[in-house]
Amino acid sequence: MMPPLPSERAYIPFVSVQHMMALVHHIGVERLLVELTDVMEAEFLRWDHFDKTPRVASHSPEGVIELMPTSDGTLYAFKYVNGHPSNTRQGLQTVTALGLLAEVETGYPVLLTEMTMLTALRTAATSAMAARALAPKPANCMAMIGNGAQAEFQALAMKAVLGVKTVRLFDIDPEATAKTVRNLAGSGLEVIACSSAQAAIEGAQIITTCTADKQYATILTDNMVGAGVHLNAIGGDCPGKTELHRDILARADTFVEYTPQTRIEGEIQQMPADYPVTELCAVLRGEAEGRRDARAVTLFDSVGFAVEDFAALRYVRDRLEGTDFYQKIDIIADPDDPRDLFGMLQRSKG
Amino acid sequence: MMPPLPSERAYIPFVSVQHMMALVHHIGVERLLVELTDVMEAEFLRWDHFDKTPRVASHSPEGVIELMPTSDGTLYAFKYVNGHPSNTRQGLQTVTALGLLAEVETGYPVLLTEMTMLTALRTAATSAMAARALAPKPANCMAMIGNGAQAEFQALAMKAVLGVKTVRLFDIDPEATAKTVRNLAGSGLEVIACSSAQAAIEGAQIITTCTADKQYATILTDNMVGAGVHLNAIGGDCPGKTELHRDILARADTFVEYTPQTRIEGEIQQMPADYPVTELCAVLRGEAEGRRDARAVTLFDSVGFAVEDFAALRYVRDRLEGTDFYQKIDIIADPDDPRDLFGMLQRSKG
Repeated sequence: MMPPLPSERAYIPFVSVQHMMALVHHIGVERLLVELTDVMEAEFLRWDHFDKTPRVASHSPEGVIELMPTSDGTLYAFKYVNGHPSNTRQGLQTVTALGLLAEVETGYPVLLTEMTMLTALRTAATSAMAARALAPKPANCMAMIGNGAQAEFQALAMKAVLGVKTVRLFDIDPEATAKTVRNLAGSGLEVIACSSAQAAIEGAQIITTCTADKQYATILTDNMVGAGVHLNAIGGDCPGKTELHRDILARADTFVEYTPQTRIEGEIQQMPADYPVTELCAVLRGEAEGRRDARAVTLFDSVGFAVEDFAALRYVRDRLEGTDFYQKIDIIADPDDPRDLFGMLQRSKG
Repeated sequence: MMPPLPSERAYIPFVSVQHMMALVHHIGVERLLVELTDVMEAEFLRWDHFDKTPRVASHSPEGVIELMPTSDGTLYAFKYVNGHPSNTRQGLQTVTALGLLAEVETGYPVLLTEMTMLTALRTAATSAMAARALAPKPANCMAMIGNGAQAEFQALAMKAVLGVKTVRLFDIDPEATAKTVRNLAGSGLEVIACSSAQAAIEGAQIITTCTADKQYATILTDNMVGAGVHLNAIGGDCPGKTELHRDILARADTFVEYTPQTRIEGEIQQMPADYPVTELCAVLRGEAEGRRDARAVTLFDSVGFAVEDFAALRYVRDRLEGTDFYQKIDIIADPDDPRDLFGMLQRSKG
């Protein structure tokens, strides 16, 4: 496993945004989403193997900066990620991220990568994994409320993994919808721009909500949600930020990634502490019921969890092998004698 | 502050180990240690400005991986750091680290850097800052028990900041001592290799302990510690890892970085929860007594704290300006339209 020369240990592969995009095209975005969904499910099936440290959030008036660590005892991963809804006003991303994978045995990093692009991909794969377990079958049509940076990734994952054929779009900003229509042209999806959330959800078996305001919003009200649909709620993901009216929660069967985190950050922060939820890993393992019947409203109250980033990082590491979609960066001081850090500094003097 | 072109935001400066070493030589190691000690003290003086999130540790049989975040409301910093005492057996560093600085307002990273070298420098600067406040004056002689990777940095910081003239070395491994003697030749310090800890502390006003075993060790016993010395204990820094006999603690005046963390990780984990300690920032601000009298034994029970890394990262960022000791890495996905992450991916297809 370990390269024989200590000096090799000084370098770790770094995947830039350009390299990540090249890797995505090399694999193919839909194929990648399918593979990543399967890798994700494999990690959820061994959910108990993971050290589920809570994420560490640093809140400010403008947004939040989070560190999301986890470990399976062999590999350790963490993601740095910010969420700043007001960033778009100055032409910046709401969410940027980077991630690191390290060996638990030595603590040495083995991969550093951009994760802005990768987070969009892993979020879409997680949504697809949940929808595969919970949505009515067949699910031909998805409504996508909120047409921001995640929209196309969500649409393509649902197409590639579940066979969704039609996507109905709505955003309060018609330009966001137009952007999504443009980007999905040629994808093989039927794409329909709608003038309201109400119009968008018509005939949809899956309703994905992904809006970005940091506030208690009501993107969907109870009367809009018909029997039998699957709600994929990914925008309500931090304290004070929700998208669904609580009456919807009152009648939905709600599935979560990790209960303690979702009670604080998810849609269910609106509900009492004893509001019943089921962890998705239990459904995937066949230990808990998913969709009860054709009329049930299932809700995946997704907030994003470190295990998903772990899965994505491991996938990228595996998929990088044999490619040149990375550069090596010299981030580990690696003296010949590990106790001789100062000697290394001295000898570096030209 | 912000570059006008959005595409500039895609790149952040990355300081590799090679670049860090070049920066150190550019400034001069002793001058850097003096400057960093002053920067450190300025941050300790505004201790209350910092969001002191506890560090997040992931323990394994072999060691620990930690994330250490903090923020002053304008900048956010975190360090990734491991501690694996057994690493040296396979020729690897006990401690490796990397750090990141970000703007709180946008969540955008502004600096990524190696921190193995930088942590050794900031630990030495922190020790010097504490000794300047607590050690007897003049302090001409330091004993250095444990001659690993930190030893020379500690010695040079005490020389540069306090005017220490003589360093008396001891390590259970004579090769470690020989390495330190070799590296400090020509530094202007009188360097004396000693055959026992007892011999090393003879005549020393400052006793620095920095050994690496992850266990309850007794590097110093009570009868070895005479009146009036300053103990700089930096090796006892995680649960289950201490260096001093508890009888020393019983008669010392103990100073800490951040009480809740040190009670878990420091030498004082051996003592009851009401064992009295003084936070160093209070001494530096003149709000608490430091050294009571010439016969007092002062103990800086140092475990390392995120504010110290913050200070080091900010210092490096300031000192990088106008130099070329960094490379720009493409770690932030920066589409023209922040909502158009997918379009950016699409357009990157060759």
